[in-house]
Amino acid sequence: MVFRTAFLRVVFALGGVVLAGGAAPTPPSMNDILTASPKADWRPVDPGNTLIMQLPAGRVVIELAPAFAPNTIANIRTLVQAHYFDGAAIVRAQDNYVVQWSRTDHRPLGAAKSTFAPEFDRAIGPDIGFSPLPDPDTYAPQTGFSDGFPVARDPSAGRVWLTHCYGMVGVGRDVAADSGSGSELYAVIGQSPRNLDRNVTLVGRVIEGIEVFSTLPRGTGALGFYEKPEQPVPIISVRLASDLPMAERPKFEALRTDSATFRALLHERRARPDPWYKHSPGHIGVCNMPLPVRAVGRKT
Amino acid sequence: MVFRTAFLRVVFALGGVVLAGGAAPTPPSMNDILTASPKADWRPVDPGNTLIMQLPAGRVVIELAPAFAPNTIANIRTLVQAHYFDGAAIVRAQDNYVVQWSRTDHRPLGAAKSTFAPEFDRAIGPDIGFSPLPDPDTYAPQTGFSDGFPVARDPSAGRVWLTHCYGMVGVGRDVAADSGSGSELYAVIGQSPRNLDRNVTLVGRVIEGIEVFSTLPRGTGALGFYEKPEQPVPIISVRLASDLPMAERPKFEALRTDSATFRALLHERRARPDPWYKHSPGHIGVCNMPLPVRAVGRKT
Repeated sequence: MVFRTAFLRVVFALGGVVLAGGAAPTPPSMNDILTASPKADWRPVDPGNTLIMQLPAGRVVIELAPAFAPNTIANIRTLVQAHYFDGAAIVRAQDNYVVQWSRTDHRPLGAAKSTFAPEFDRAIGPDIGFSPLPDPDTYAPQTGFSDGFPVARDPSAGRVWLTHCYGMVGVGRDVAADSGSGSELYAVIGQSPRNLDRNVTLVGRVIEGIEVFSTLPRGTGALGFYEKPEQPVPIISVRLASDLPMAERPKFEALRTDSATFRALLHERRARPDPWYKHSPGHIGVCNMPLPVRAVGRKT
Repeated sequence: MVFRTAFLRVVFALGGVVLAGGAAPTPPSMNDILTASPKADWRPVDPGNTLIMQLPAGRVVIELAPAFAPNTIANIRTLVQAHYFDGAAIVRAQDNYVVQWSRTDHRPLGAAKSTFAPEFDRAIGPDIGFSPLPDPDTYAPQTGFSDGFPVARDPSAGRVWLTHCYGMVGVGRDVAADSGSGSELYAVIGQSPRNLDRNVTLVGRVIEGIEVFSTLPRGTGALGFYEKPEQPVPIISVRLASDLPMAERPKFEALRTDSATFRALLHERRARPDPWYKHSPGHIGVCNMPLPVRAVGRKT
Protein backbone atom coordinates (compact mmCIF):
# COMPACT_ATOMS: atom_id res chain seq x y z
CA MET A 1 0.00 0.00 0.00
CA VAL A 2 1.20 3.50 -0.70
CA PHE A 3 -0.70 5.68 1.67
CA ARG A 4 -0.58 9.43 1.82
CA THR A 5 1.49 10.60 4.76
CA ALA A 6 -1.21 12.66 6.46
CA PHE A 7 -3.49 9.65 6.32
CA LEU A 8 -0.84 7.39 7.78
CA ARG A 9 -0.44 9.68 10.76
CA VAL A 10 -4.12 9.07 11.46
CA VAL A 11 -3.80 5.33 10.88
CA PHE A 12 -0.91 4.95 13.28
CA ALA A 13 -2.56 7.20 15.86
CA LEU A 14 -5.40 4.70 15.74
CA GLY A 15 -3.07 1.80 16.40
CA GLY A 16 -2.86 0.60 12.84
CA VAL A 17 -6.53 -0.05 12.36
CA VAL A 18 -7.84 1.26 9.07
CA LEU A 19 -11.28 2.68 9.68
CA ALA A 20 -13.36 2.67 6.54
CA GLY A 21 -16.55 4.45 7.51
CA GLY A 22 -19.22 1.93 8.49
CA ALA A 23 -17.43 -1.01 6.85
CA ALA A 24 -17.00 -4.50 8.29
CA PRO A 25 -13.96 -5.16 10.50
CA THR A 26 -10.70 -5.16 8.58
CA PRO A 27 -9.58 -8.69 7.55
CA PRO A 28 -6.38 -9.95 9.18
CA SER A 29 -3.27 -8.25 7.85
CA MET A 30 0.09 -9.89 7.29
CA ASN A 31 1.16 -8.69 10.74
CA ASP A 32 -2.03 -10.07 12.30
CA ILE A 33 -1.37 -13.45 10.71
CA LEU A 34 2.24 -13.53 11.87
CA THR A 35 1.34 -12.38 15.38
CA ALA A 36 -1.22 -15.18 15.70
CA SER A 37 1.13 -17.86 14.34
CA PRO A 38 1.90 -20.85 16.55
CA LYS A 39 5.51 -21.44 17.55
CA ALA A 40 5.48 -24.74 15.66
CA ASP A 41 5.06 -22.88 12.37
CA TRP A 42 8.56 -21.45 12.76
CA ARG A 43 11.84 -23.32 12.36
CA PRO A 44 15.12 -22.37 13.96
CA VAL A 45 17.68 -21.22 11.41
CA ASP A 46 20.61 -23.63 11.72
CA PRO A 47 23.68 -21.75 13.09
CA GLY A 48 25.80 -24.00 10.87
CA ASN A 49 24.03 -22.50 7.87
CA THR A 50 24.17 -18.90 9.09
CA LEU A 51 26.82 -16.47 7.89
CA ILE A 52 27.35 -13.25 9.84
CA MET A 53 29.06 -10.52 7.86
CA GLN A 54 30.23 -7.42 9.69
CA LEU A 55 30.53 -4.24 7.66
CA PRO A 56 31.26 -0.73 8.94
CA ALA A 57 27.57 0.17 8.43
CA GLY A 58 26.18 -2.89 10.17
CA ARG A 59 25.57 -6.61 10.07
CA VAL A 60 24.34 -8.75 7.19
CA VAL A 61 23.10 -12.26 7.96
CA ILE A 62 22.83 -14.91 5.26
CA GLU A 63 21.09 -18.28 5.54
CA LEU A 64 22.82 -20.89 3.42
CA ALA A 65 20.87 -23.56 1.52
CA PRO A 66 23.07 -26.66 1.49
CA ALA A 67 20.26 -28.78 0.03
CA PHE A 68 20.81 -26.91 -3.22
CA ALA A 69 24.56 -26.34 -3.32
CA PRO A 70 26.28 -28.71 -0.89
CA ASN A 71 29.74 -28.63 -2.46
CA THR A 72 29.90 -24.90 -3.01
CA ILE A 73 28.67 -24.26 0.51
CA ALA A 74 31.24 -26.68 1.94
CA ASN A 75 33.86 -24.64 0.10
CA ILE A 76 32.46 -21.37 1.44
CA ARG A 77 32.50 -22.79 4.98
CA THR A 78 36.17 -23.72 4.49
CA LEU A 79 36.94 -20.17 3.33
CA VAL A 80 34.96 -18.59 6.18
CA GLN A 81 36.62 -20.77 8.80
CA ALA A 82 40.03 -19.71 7.44
CA HIS A 83 38.82 -16.08 7.84
CA TYR A 84 39.27 -15.65 4.09
CA PHE A 85 36.66 -12.87 3.89
CA ASP A 86 38.09 -10.82 6.78
CA GLY A 87 39.64 -7.91 4.92
CA ALA A 88 37.74 -8.64 1.72
CA ALA A 89 35.54 -5.83 0.37
CA ILE A 90 32.35 -4.99 -1.45
CA VAL A 91 33.86 -4.25 -4.84
CA ARG A 92 30.72 -3.71 -6.89
CA ALA A 93 27.29 -2.16 -6.39
CA GLN A 94 25.23 -2.02 -9.56
CA ASP A 95 21.87 -0.32 -9.21
CA ASN A 96 18.83 -2.57 -9.60
CA TYR A 97 21.10 -5.61 -9.84
CA VAL A 98 23.74 -6.84 -7.39
CA VAL A 99 26.42 -6.03 -4.84
CA GLN A 100 29.46 -8.27 -5.06
CA TRP A 101 32.32 -8.97 -2.68
CA SER A 102 35.74 -10.55 -2.93
CA ARG A 103 39.28 -10.09 -1.77
CA THR A 104 41.24 -7.49 -3.69
CA ASP A 105 44.63 -8.96 -2.98
CA HIS A 106 45.82 -12.36 -4.17
CA ARG A 107 45.37 -14.36 -1.00
CA PRO A 108 45.30 -18.02 -1.97
CA LEU A 109 42.21 -20.13 -1.27
CA GLY A 110 44.13 -22.41 1.10
CA ALA A 111 42.25 -25.64 1.77
CA ALA A 112 39.31 -24.51 -0.38
CA LYS A 113 38.95 -25.62 -3.98
CA SER A 114 39.19 -23.14 -6.83
CA THR A 115 36.99 -25.03 -9.29
CA PHE A 116 34.43 -27.76 -9.17
CA ALA A 117 31.26 -28.86 -10.86
CA PRO A 118 28.61 -26.11 -10.70
CA GLU A 119 25.41 -26.58 -8.73
CA PHE A 120 23.04 -24.61 -10.95
CA ASP A 121 20.14 -26.94 -10.24
CA ARG A 122 19.47 -30.32 -8.64
CA ALA A 123 17.18 -33.31 -8.89
CA ILE A 124 13.70 -33.04 -7.44
CA GLY A 125 13.77 -35.34 -4.45
CA PRO A 126 12.08 -36.32 -1.21
CA ASP A 127 14.79 -34.68 0.91
CA ILE A 128 13.43 -31.19 0.21
CA GLY A 129 9.91 -29.89 0.59
CA PHE A 130 7.94 -28.06 -2.04
CA SER A 131 5.00 -25.72 -1.53
CA PRO A 132 3.82 -24.72 -5.01
CA LEU A 133 2.49 -21.34 -6.04
CA PRO A 134 -0.72 -21.44 -8.08
CA ASP A 135 0.12 -18.60 -10.48
CA PRO A 136 2.02 -18.69 -13.77
CA ASP A 137 5.68 -17.72 -13.85
CA THR A 138 7.43 -15.98 -16.73
CA TYR A 139 10.58 -18.08 -16.58
CA ALA A 140 9.76 -21.59 -15.34
CA PRO A 141 7.02 -24.22 -15.56
CA GLN A 142 6.48 -24.14 -11.80
CA THR A 143 7.51 -22.04 -8.82
CA GLY A 144 7.12 -22.26 -5.06
CA PHE A 145 9.11 -22.64 -1.88
CA SER A 146 11.40 -25.32 -0.54
CA ASP A 147 12.29 -25.19 3.14
CA GLY A 148 12.16 -21.40 3.23
CA PHE A 149 13.76 -20.65 -0.11
CA PRO A 150 12.16 -19.51 -3.37
CA VAL A 151 12.48 -22.14 -6.09
CA ALA A 152 11.46 -22.99 -9.64
CA ARG A 153 10.99 -26.46 -11.02
CA ASP A 154 10.76 -28.27 -14.30
CA PRO A 155 8.85 -31.42 -13.38
CA SER A 156 9.29 -32.96 -16.82
CA ALA A 157 13.06 -32.74 -16.44
CA GLY A 158 12.94 -33.60 -12.74
CA ARG A 159 14.96 -30.49 -11.81
CA VAL A 160 14.57 -27.79 -9.18
CA TRP A 161 16.64 -24.65 -8.57
CA LEU A 162 16.79 -21.59 -6.36
CA THR A 163 15.46 -18.42 -8.01
CA HIS A 164 17.16 -15.02 -8.23
CA CYS A 165 14.87 -13.03 -5.95
CA TYR A 166 15.74 -9.90 -3.96
CA GLY A 167 18.34 -10.76 -1.32
CA MET A 168 19.44 -14.06 -2.83
CA VAL A 169 23.17 -14.76 -2.66
CA GLY A 170 25.12 -16.39 -5.49
CA VAL A 171 28.56 -17.26 -6.72
CA GLY A 172 30.34 -15.05 -9.25
CA ARG A 173 32.09 -16.99 -11.98
CA ASP A 174 33.95 -16.57 -15.25
CA VAL A 175 32.81 -17.96 -18.61
CA ALA A 176 33.69 -21.50 -17.56
CA ALA A 177 30.78 -23.08 -15.71
CA ASP A 178 33.09 -24.61 -13.09
CA SER A 179 34.96 -21.38 -12.31
CA GLY A 180 32.89 -20.26 -9.34
CA SER A 181 34.62 -21.27 -6.13
CA GLY A 182 32.51 -19.21 -3.73
CA SER A 183 35.40 -16.84 -3.04
CA GLU A 184 33.41 -14.11 -4.88
CA LEU A 185 29.78 -13.78 -3.91
CA TYR A 186 26.97 -11.40 -4.79
CA ALA A 187 23.56 -10.49 -3.44
CA VAL A 188 20.57 -9.33 -5.49
CA ILE A 189 19.50 -5.74 -4.65
CA GLY A 190 16.94 -5.07 -7.39
CA GLN A 191 14.34 -6.54 -9.68
CA SER A 192 14.78 -10.31 -9.68
CA PRO A 193 17.29 -11.13 -12.47
CA ARG A 194 15.67 -14.47 -13.23
CA ASN A 195 17.73 -14.74 -16.42
CA LEU A 196 20.58 -15.77 -14.12
CA ASP A 197 18.64 -18.80 -12.85
CA ARG A 198 20.47 -22.03 -13.68
CA ASN A 199 23.49 -20.01 -14.79
CA VAL A 200 25.09 -19.49 -11.42
CA THR A 201 25.15 -21.41 -8.19
CA LEU A 202 22.88 -19.75 -5.65
CA VAL A 203 23.86 -20.53 -2.09
CA GLY A 204 21.38 -18.75 0.18
CA ARG A 205 19.65 -15.52 0.98
CA VAL A 206 20.04 -12.48 3.19
CA ILE A 207 17.75 -12.79 6.22
CA GLU A 208 18.86 -9.62 8.03
CA GLY A 209 20.56 -6.41 6.97
CA ILE A 210 19.91 -6.37 3.24
CA GLU A 211 19.59 -2.58 3.54
CA VAL A 212 23.27 -2.47 4.45
CA PHE A 213 23.91 -3.74 0.92
CA SER A 214 21.10 -1.98 -0.92
CA THR A 215 21.99 1.53 0.26
CA LEU A 216 25.67 1.31 -0.71
CA PRO A 217 26.84 3.98 -3.14
CA ARG A 218 26.61 2.61 -6.65
CA GLY A 219 29.87 2.01 -8.46
CA THR A 220 30.48 4.23 -11.45
CA GLY A 221 32.66 1.78 -13.36
CA ALA A 222 31.42 -0.73 -15.89
CA LEU A 223 28.88 -3.13 -14.30
CA GLY A 224 28.85 -1.00 -11.16
CA PHE A 225 32.39 -1.81 -10.05
CA TYR A 226 34.02 0.75 -7.81
CA GLU A 227 36.70 2.60 -9.74
CA LYS A 228 38.78 4.30 -7.08
CA PRO A 229 40.94 2.50 -4.50
CA GLU A 230 39.10 4.19 -1.60
CA GLN A 231 35.64 3.13 -2.76
CA PRO A 232 35.45 -0.60 -1.99
CA VAL A 233 33.66 -1.12 1.31
CA PRO A 234 35.77 -3.18 3.72
CA ILE A 235 34.37 -6.37 5.17
CA ILE A 236 35.45 -6.60 8.78
CA SER A 237 34.67 -10.28 9.20
CA VAL A 238 32.50 -13.15 8.04
CA ARG A 239 31.76 -15.94 10.50
CA LEU A 240 29.54 -18.96 10.74
CA ALA A 241 27.13 -18.41 13.62
CA SER A 242 28.03 -21.91 14.84
CA ASP A 243 31.64 -20.79 15.25
CA LEU A 244 30.70 -17.92 17.56
CA PRO A 245 30.53 -18.37 21.33
CA MET A 246 26.96 -19.13 22.38
CA ALA A 247 26.63 -15.75 24.10
CA GLU A 248 27.48 -13.87 20.90
CA ARG A 249 25.51 -16.04 18.55
CA PRO A 250 22.45 -14.37 17.02
CA LYS A 251 19.46 -16.65 16.71
CA PHE A 252 16.74 -16.55 14.10
CA GLU A 253 13.53 -18.34 13.32
CA ALA A 254 12.09 -18.57 9.83
CA LEU A 255 8.45 -19.14 9.04
CA ARG A 256 8.04 -22.67 7.70
CA THR A 257 6.95 -22.43 4.08
CA ASP A 258 4.95 -25.64 4.48
CA SER A 259 2.98 -24.30 7.48
CA ALA A 260 -0.65 -23.23 7.85
CA THR A 261 0.55 -19.73 8.73
CA PHE A 262 2.47 -19.50 5.46
CA ARG A 263 -0.60 -20.68 3.55
CA ALA A 264 -2.73 -18.03 5.29
CA LEU A 265 -0.11 -15.43 4.43
CA LEU A 266 -0.05 -16.56 0.82
CA HIS A 267 -3.82 -16.29 0.64
CA GLU A 268 -3.72 -12.77 2.10
CA ARG A 269 -0.91 -11.63 -0.18
CA ARG A 270 -2.70 -12.90 -3.28
CA ALA A 271 -6.17 -11.58 -2.38
CA ARG A 272 -5.26 -8.37 -0.50
CA PRO A 273 -8.67 -8.24 1.18
CA ASP A 274 -8.05 -4.99 3.04
CA PRO A 275 -10.15 -2.00 1.97
CA TRP A 276 -7.24 -0.05 0.52
CA TYR A 277 -7.15 -2.42 -2.45
CA LYS A 278 -9.72 -1.63 -5.14
CA HIS A 279 -8.52 -4.39 -7.45
CA SER A 280 -7.55 -7.69 -5.86
CA PRO A 281 -4.32 -8.79 -7.54
CA GLY A 282 -5.42 -12.43 -7.21
CA HIS A 283 -1.91 -13.59 -8.08
CA ILE A 284 1.59 -13.51 -6.65
CA GLY A 285 5.05 -14.07 -8.04
CA VAL A 286 7.69 -16.23 -6.40
CA CYS A 287 9.86 -13.15 -5.79
CA ASN A 288 6.98 -11.10 -4.36
CA MET A 289 6.08 -13.43 -1.53
CA PRO A 290 7.53 -12.40 1.85
CA LEU A 291 9.60 -15.06 3.63
CA PRO A 292 9.40 -13.92 7.25
CA VAL A 293 12.37 -14.31 9.58
CA ARG A 294 12.48 -13.13 13.19
CA ALA A 295 15.34 -12.61 15.57
CA VAL A 296 15.04 -14.57 18.81
CA GLY A 297 16.14 -13.02 22.10
CA ARG A 298 17.89 -10.18 20.37
CA LYS A 299 20.07 -8.03 22.56
CA THR A 300 19.25 -4.41 21.82
CA MET B 1 26.23 -11.70 -15.79
CA VAL B 2 28.04 -11.97 -12.51
CA PHE B 3 31.66 -12.27 -13.44
CA ARG B 4 34.48 -12.82 -11.06
CA THR B 5 36.44 -9.64 -10.56
CA ALA B 6 39.80 -10.93 -11.71
CA PHE B 7 38.19 -12.13 -14.91
CA LEU B 8 36.51 -8.77 -15.49
CA ARG B 9 39.85 -7.03 -15.31
CA VAL B 10 40.92 -9.16 -18.24
CA VAL B 11 37.69 -8.54 -20.13
CA PHE B 12 37.93 -4.79 -19.84
CA ALA B 13 41.61 -4.82 -20.71
CA LEU B 14 40.53 -6.48 -23.94
CA GLY B 15 38.02 -3.74 -24.67
CA GLY B 16 34.98 -5.69 -23.58
CA VAL B 17 35.42 -8.59 -25.97
CA VAL B 18 34.96 -11.93 -24.28
CA LEU B 19 37.46 -14.34 -25.74
CA ALA B 20 36.31 -17.91 -25.38
CA GLY B 21 39.22 -19.98 -26.61
CA GLY B 22 38.74 -20.89 -30.27
CA ALA B 23 35.01 -20.10 -30.27
CA ALA B 24 33.06 -18.21 -32.90
CA PRO B 25 32.88 -14.41 -32.60
CA THR B 26 30.75 -13.21 -29.72
CA PRO B 27 27.17 -12.36 -30.77
CA PRO B 28 26.19 -8.69 -30.48
CA SER B 29 25.73 -7.56 -26.89
CA MET B 30 23.14 -5.08 -25.66
CA ASN B 31 25.73 -2.34 -25.96
CA ASP B 32 26.63 -3.44 -29.50
CA ILE B 33 22.95 -3.31 -30.49
CA LEU B 34 22.46 0.14 -28.99
CA THR B 35 25.68 1.47 -30.52
CA ALA B 36 24.58 0.31 -33.96
CA SER B 37 21.04 1.72 -33.63
CA PRO B 38 19.90 4.29 -36.17
CA LYS B 39 18.94 7.73 -34.89
CA ALA B 40 15.35 7.15 -36.09
CA ASP B 41 14.91 4.37 -33.52
CA TRP B 42 15.13 6.94 -30.74
CA ARG B 43 12.47 9.49 -29.81
CA PRO B 44 13.11 12.78 -28.06
CA VAL B 45 11.66 12.83 -24.55
CA ASP B 46 9.14 15.69 -24.52
CA PRO B 47 10.38 18.47 -22.17
CA GLY B 48 6.73 19.08 -21.27
CA ASN B 49 6.64 15.54 -19.87
CA THR B 50 9.99 15.73 -18.09
CA LEU B 51 10.27 16.47 -14.38
CA ILE B 52 13.64 17.50 -12.98
CA MET B 53 13.96 16.96 -9.23
CA GLN B 54 16.99 18.42 -7.46
CA LEU B 55 18.07 16.73 -4.25
CA PRO B 56 21.21 17.39 -2.21
CA ALA B 57 22.72 14.16 -3.56
CA GLY B 58 21.91 14.83 -7.20
CA ARG B 59 19.26 15.04 -9.89
CA VAL B 60 16.37 12.69 -10.56
CA VAL B 61 14.60 12.93 -13.92
CA ILE B 62 11.11 11.52 -14.43
CA GLU B 63 9.33 11.05 -17.75
CA LEU B 64 5.57 11.49 -17.35
CA ALA B 65 3.09 9.34 -19.28
CA PRO B 66 0.06 11.56 -19.94
CA ALA B 67 -1.50 8.97 -22.25
CA PHE B 68 -2.19 6.92 -19.10
CA ALA B 69 -3.00 9.56 -16.47
CA PRO B 70 -3.87 12.86 -18.19
CA ASN B 71 -5.82 14.41 -15.31
CA THR B 72 -3.40 13.44 -12.57
CA ILE B 73 -0.46 14.65 -14.63
CA ALA B 74 -2.22 17.94 -15.37
CA ASN B 75 -2.61 18.34 -11.61
CA ILE B 76 1.06 17.50 -11.01
CA ARG B 77 2.06 20.07 -13.65
CA THR B 78 -0.05 22.67 -11.83
CA LEU B 79 1.67 21.82 -8.54
CA VAL B 80 5.13 21.86 -10.09
CA GLN B 81 4.54 25.19 -11.82
CA ALA B 82 3.47 26.65 -8.45
CA HIS B 83 6.77 25.32 -7.04
CA TYR B 84 4.74 23.18 -4.64
CA PHE B 85 7.50 20.57 -4.29
CA ASP B 86 10.29 23.08 -3.56
CA GLY B 87 10.87 22.47 0.12
CA ALA B 88 9.03 19.15 0.11
CA ALA B 89 11.01 16.11 1.27
CA ILE B 90 11.57 12.43 0.84
CA VAL B 91 9.64 11.23 3.89
CA ARG B 92 9.82 7.48 3.38
CA ALA B 93 12.32 4.93 2.11
CA GLN B 94 11.19 1.34 2.55
CA ASP B 95 13.70 -1.27 1.49
CA ASN B 96 12.76 -3.33 -1.56
CA TYR B 97 9.66 -1.21 -2.04
CA VAL B 98 9.36 2.56 -2.49
CA VAL B 99 10.64 6.02 -1.65
CA GLN B 100 7.89 8.59 -1.20
CA TRP B 101 7.88 12.37 -1.13
CA SER B 102 5.50 15.08 0.01
CA ARG B 103 5.40 18.37 1.84
CA THR B 104 5.61 18.10 5.59
CA ASP B 105 3.86 21.39 6.31
CA HIS B 106 0.27 22.16 5.41
CA ARG B 107 0.81 24.24 2.30
CA PRO B 108 -2.48 24.27 0.38
CA LEU B 109 -2.68 22.83 -3.12
CA GLY B 110 -3.57 26.19 -4.64
CA ALA B 111 -5.00 25.86 -8.12
CA ALA B 112 -4.49 22.08 -8.07
CA LYS B 113 -7.35 19.72 -7.21
CA SER B 114 -7.24 17.59 -4.08
CA THR B 115 -9.44 14.76 -5.38
CA PHE B 116 -10.60 13.44 -8.70
CA ALA B 117 -11.40 10.20 -10.44
CA PRO B 118 -8.44 7.82 -10.30
CA GLU B 119 -6.64 6.78 -13.46
CA PHE B 120 -5.74 3.22 -12.50
CA ASP B 121 -6.15 1.95 -16.05
CA ARG B 122 -7.50 3.14 -19.38
CA ALA B 123 -9.16 1.85 -22.53
CA ILE B 124 -7.01 0.12 -25.11
CA GLY B 125 -7.00 2.55 -28.01
CA PRO B 126 -5.28 3.51 -31.24
CA ASP B 127 -3.64 6.57 -29.66
CA ILE B 128 -1.04 4.45 -27.89
CA GLY B 129 1.24 1.81 -29.33
CA PHE B 130 1.66 -1.69 -28.01
CA SER B 131 4.61 -4.01 -28.51
CA PRO B 132 3.68 -7.29 -26.83
CA LEU B 133 6.00 -9.60 -24.95
CA PRO B 134 5.71 -13.27 -25.90
CA ASP B 135 6.15 -14.73 -22.41
CA PRO B 136 3.56 -15.41 -19.71
CA ASP B 137 3.09 -12.92 -16.89
CA THR B 138 2.14 -13.79 -13.32
CA TYR B 139 -0.32 -10.94 -12.89
CA ALA B 140 -1.94 -10.08 -16.23
CA PRO B 141 -3.18 -11.74 -19.42
CA GLN B 142 -0.73 -9.76 -21.55
CA THR B 143 2.28 -7.49 -21.08
CA GLY B 144 4.45 -5.35 -23.30
CA PHE B 145 5.44 -1.76 -23.93
CA SER B 146 3.51 1.32 -24.97
CA ASP B 147 5.51 4.31 -26.18
CA GLY B 148 8.40 3.55 -23.87
CA PHE B 149 6.50 2.44 -20.79
CA PRO B 150 5.93 -1.06 -19.41
CA VAL B 151 2.26 -2.02 -19.54
CA ALA B 152 -0.13 -4.88 -18.94
CA ARG B 153 -3.40 -5.46 -20.75
CA ASP B 154 -6.60 -7.38 -20.41
CA PRO B 155 -7.81 -7.59 -24.01
CA SER B 156 -11.13 -9.17 -23.03
CA ALA B 157 -11.91 -6.15 -20.85
CA GLY B 158 -10.33 -3.73 -23.31
CA ARG B 159 -8.11 -2.22 -20.59
CA VAL B 160 -4.42 -1.35 -20.40
CA TRP B 161 -2.37 -0.03 -17.47
CA LEU B 162 1.16 0.90 -16.52
CA THR B 163 2.97 -1.75 -14.47
CA HIS B 164 4.83 -1.29 -11.18
CA CYS B 165 8.38 -1.93 -12.39
CA TYR B 166 11.60 -0.62 -10.85
CA GLY B 167 11.72 3.18 -11.19
CA MET B 168 8.02 3.66 -11.89
CA VAL B 169 6.44 6.69 -10.22
CA GLY B 170 2.94 6.66 -8.73
CA VAL B 171 0.50 8.60 -6.64
CA GLY B 172 0.09 7.90 -2.92
CA ARG B 173 -3.51 7.83 -1.79
CA ASP B 174 -5.71 7.05 1.22
CA VAL B 175 -8.37 4.31 1.29
CA ALA B 176 -10.66 6.33 -0.97
CA ALA B 177 -9.83 5.65 -4.62
CA ASP B 178 -10.15 9.34 -5.52
CA SER B 179 -7.87 10.60 -2.76
CA GLY B 180 -4.63 10.75 -4.72
CA SER B 181 -4.01 14.27 -5.93
CA GLY B 182 -0.42 13.85 -7.04
CA SER B 183 0.86 15.96 -4.14
CA GLU B 184 2.41 12.78 -2.67
CA LEU B 185 4.37 10.63 -5.07
CA TYR B 186 6.49 7.51 -4.79
CA ALA B 187 9.04 5.65 -6.89
CA VAL B 188 9.64 1.89 -6.89
CA ILE B 189 13.13 0.93 -5.64
CA GLY B 190 12.80 -2.85 -5.36
CA GLN B 191 11.17 -5.96 -6.70
CA SER B 192 8.22 -4.91 -8.85
CA PRO B 193 5.17 -4.67 -6.51
CA ARG B 194 2.77 -5.71 -9.24
CA ASN B 195 0.03 -6.16 -6.62
CA LEU B 196 -0.28 -2.36 -6.74
CA ASP B 197 -1.16 -2.41 -10.44
CA ARG B 198 -4.64 -0.94 -11.02
CA ASN B 199 -4.73 0.21 -7.40
CA VAL B 200 -2.84 3.45 -7.77
CA THR B 201 -2.38 5.92 -10.57
CA LEU B 202 1.05 5.53 -12.10
CA VAL B 203 2.28 8.69 -13.79
CA GLY B 204 5.71 7.94 -15.22
CA ARG B 205 9.14 6.55 -14.59
CA VAL B 206 12.58 7.65 -13.50
CA ILE B 207 14.84 7.95 -16.55
CA GLU B 208 17.91 9.32 -14.76
CA GLY B 209 19.14 9.28 -11.18
CA ILE B 210 17.17 6.40 -9.69
CA GLU B 211 20.27 5.60 -7.61
CA VAL B 212 19.75 8.93 -5.80
CA PHE B 213 16.53 7.40 -4.50
CA SER B 214 17.62 3.79 -4.12
CA THR B 215 20.65 4.52 -1.95
CA LEU B 216 18.77 6.69 0.57
CA PRO B 217 18.96 5.48 4.17
CA ARG B 218 15.92 3.34 4.90
CA GLY B 219 13.39 4.73 7.33
CA THR B 220 13.09 2.85 10.59
CA GLY B 221 9.45 3.74 11.24
CA ALA B 222 6.48 1.70 10.14
CA LEU B 223 6.43 1.27 6.34
CA GLY B 224 9.88 2.83 6.13
CA PHE B 225 8.83 6.34 7.15
CA TYR B 226 11.55 8.47 8.64
CA GLU B 227 10.96 8.90 12.36
CA LYS B 228 13.15 11.81 13.36
CA PRO B 229 12.66 15.40 12.19
CA GLU B 230 16.17 15.57 10.77
CA GLN B 231 15.80 12.45 8.62
CA PRO B 232 13.55 13.53 5.75
CA VAL B 233 15.67 14.39 2.71
CA PRO B 234 14.90 17.90 1.45
CA ILE B 235 13.81 18.41 -2.13
CA ILE B 236 15.45 21.56 -3.43
CA SER B 237 13.22 21.96 -6.44
CA VAL B 238 11.05 20.16 -8.99
CA ARG B 239 10.67 21.71 -12.44
CA LEU B 240 9.25 20.79 -15.78
CA ALA B 241 12.11 20.73 -18.28
CA SER B 242 9.94 22.86 -20.58
CA ASP B 243 9.89 25.60 -17.94
CA LEU B 244 13.69 25.80 -17.81
CA PRO B 245 15.64 28.17 -20.06
CA MET B 246 16.81 26.32 -23.16
CA ALA B 247 20.44 26.55 -22.05
CA GLU B 248 19.68 24.76 -18.75
CA ARG B 249 17.27 22.21 -20.13
CA PRO B 250 18.59 18.64 -20.12
CA LYS B 251 17.63 16.65 -23.20
CA PHE B 252 17.02 12.94 -23.44
CA GLU B 253 16.23 10.40 -26.09
CA ALA B 254 14.45 7.13 -25.37
CA LEU B 255 14.69 4.02 -27.48
CA ARG B 256 11.39 3.56 -29.32
CA THR B 257 9.79 0.40 -28.02
CA ASP B 258 8.26 -0.22 -31.46
CA SER B 259 11.62 -0.03 -33.25
CA ALA B 260 13.76 -2.70 -34.89
CA THR B 261 16.51 -1.93 -32.39
CA PHE B 262 14.17 -2.64 -29.47
CA ARG B 263 13.11 -5.91 -31.11
CA ALA B 264 16.77 -6.88 -31.52
CA LEU B 265 17.39 -6.00 -27.90
CA LEU B 266 14.39 -8.03 -26.78
CA HIS B 267 15.67 -11.00 -28.76
CA GLU B 268 19.12 -10.67 -27.18
CA ARG B 269 17.75 -10.26 -23.65
CA ARG B 270 15.53 -13.35 -24.01
CA ALA B 271 18.11 -15.58 -25.66
CA ARG B 272 21.32 -14.33 -24.01
CA PRO B 273 23.48 -15.82 -26.75
CA ASP B 274 26.79 -14.81 -25.21
CA PRO B 275 29.05 -17.62 -24.05
CA TRP B 276 28.75 -16.77 -20.34
CA TYR B 277 25.21 -18.14 -20.34
CA LYS B 278 25.00 -21.92 -20.02
CA HIS B 279 21.20 -21.98 -19.92
CA SER B 280 19.39 -19.59 -22.25
CA PRO B 281 16.57 -18.05 -20.23
CA GLY B 282 14.40 -17.98 -23.36
CA HIS B 283 11.92 -15.68 -21.60
CA ILE B 284 11.75 -12.19 -20.19
CA GLY B 285 9.43 -10.38 -17.82
CA VAL B 286 7.97 -6.94 -18.45
CA CYS B 287 9.95 -5.54 -15.51
CA ASN B 288 13.21 -7.18 -16.60
CA MET B 289 13.43 -5.58 -20.03
CA PRO B 290 15.74 -2.56 -20.17
CA LEU B 291 14.17 0.65 -21.54
CA PRO B 292 17.23 2.58 -22.70
CA VAL B 293 17.38 6.36 -22.36
CA ARG B 294 20.35 8.50 -23.31
CA ALA B 295 21.25 12.08 -22.47
CA VAL B 296 21.80 14.30 -25.50
CA GLY B 297 24.52 16.95 -25.52
CA ARG B 298 25.12 16.58 -21.82
CA LYS B 299 27.31 19.20 -20.27
CA THR B 300 29.83 17.48 -18.05
